[in-house]
Amino acid sequence: MLLTEAEREYLSSQILGRLATVAPDGMPQNNPVSFRYNPETDTIDIGGRRMGATRKFRNVEATGRAALVVDDIASVNPWRVRGIEFRGRAEALRDQPPLRPGFSPEIIRLHPQRILAWGLDGEAMSMNARSV
Amino acid sequence: MLLTEAEREYLSSQILGRLATVAPDGMPQNNPVSFRYNPETDTIDIGGRRMGATRKFRNVEATGRAALVVDDIASVNPWRVRGIEFRGRAEALRDQPPLRPGFSPEIIRLHPQRILAWGLDGEAMSMNARSV
Repeated sequence: MLLTEAEREYLSSQILGRLATVAPDGMPQNNPVSFRYNPETDTIDIGGRRMGATRKFRNVEATGRAALVVDDIASVNPWRVRGIEFRGRAEALRDQPPLRPGFSPEIIRLHPQRILAWGLDGEAMSMNARSV
Repeated sequence: MLLTEAEREYLSSQILGRLATVAPDGMPQNNPVSFRYNPETDTIDIGGRRMGATRKFRNVEATGRAALVVDDIASVNPWRVRGIEFRGRAEALRDQPPLRPGFSPEIIRLHPQRILAWGLDGEAMSMNARSV
C-alpha cells in the first residue's frame, strides 16, 4: 500500500492539488488540478474538463515526469501547515473512465517514486520522507 | 509594470503559493512557499525559514527555471476558481534581506516570462495569458 491511512484521509479531504510538469525545453509549469488516489493501481490520477487539450498533458506525454503537491494551512495562529508531495513517473492516458462527471477521458497517472508528507499526524510539524 | 492592479491585489491577499522547480535529472518537485511581488525589480521573490538548505534552492541554482502558481477556490457553489501562474527564469540569491522576520537570507527570484491569470476580475471565468 502506497499511502498511510492518515495520508489517504487527508487526500480525500482536499479538493485541489497543484501539478508540476516540465516542457521538453525544461521549463516547468504549475497548475491546480483535481486528483484522486487510485487504490487499484496504487497511483495518483489527475483529471479535468479538457485534460487532453492541455499543455500539462502534452508535457507528461513528452517528459514522463510530474510532481503533485496537496497542502493547506491547518491553522494560522498557531501556524500549522500540512500536506503531501508526490514526485515520480507519469503517464498521459487516453480513453479512461473520467475521474468525475463532466471530465474528459484523458488522465495523468502519477506513479510516485518519492513521497514527502508533513503535519498530517496532528500537532507535530513532523516530516515523513520516503522512496517507494 | 509586470502586473495589473487586480493581480497585485490578489497576490497580496494570498498567504501561500506553490513553486515548481526541476532537478538536474529532469524530475520536477512542487512546494508550498511564501512569496511577494517585488515592485523594485518587477519580480516574484520567494523565501523561507531555511531556503538555502532546500532542494528547490539547489534546483534553481542548477537549472535556472521555476513556475509559481497562486490560486484558490473563490466559491464552491457556484464553482469559481481563480489564480495566477508565473513561468520563467529564476535566480537563487544569497545574502538578501529576508522576505519576512525569521526567514533565511536566501531567496528565489522569479523573472516571469509567461503569465496566466484566471477568474481575477470578478464573476467571469476569464483567462488572460501573456508573454512578458
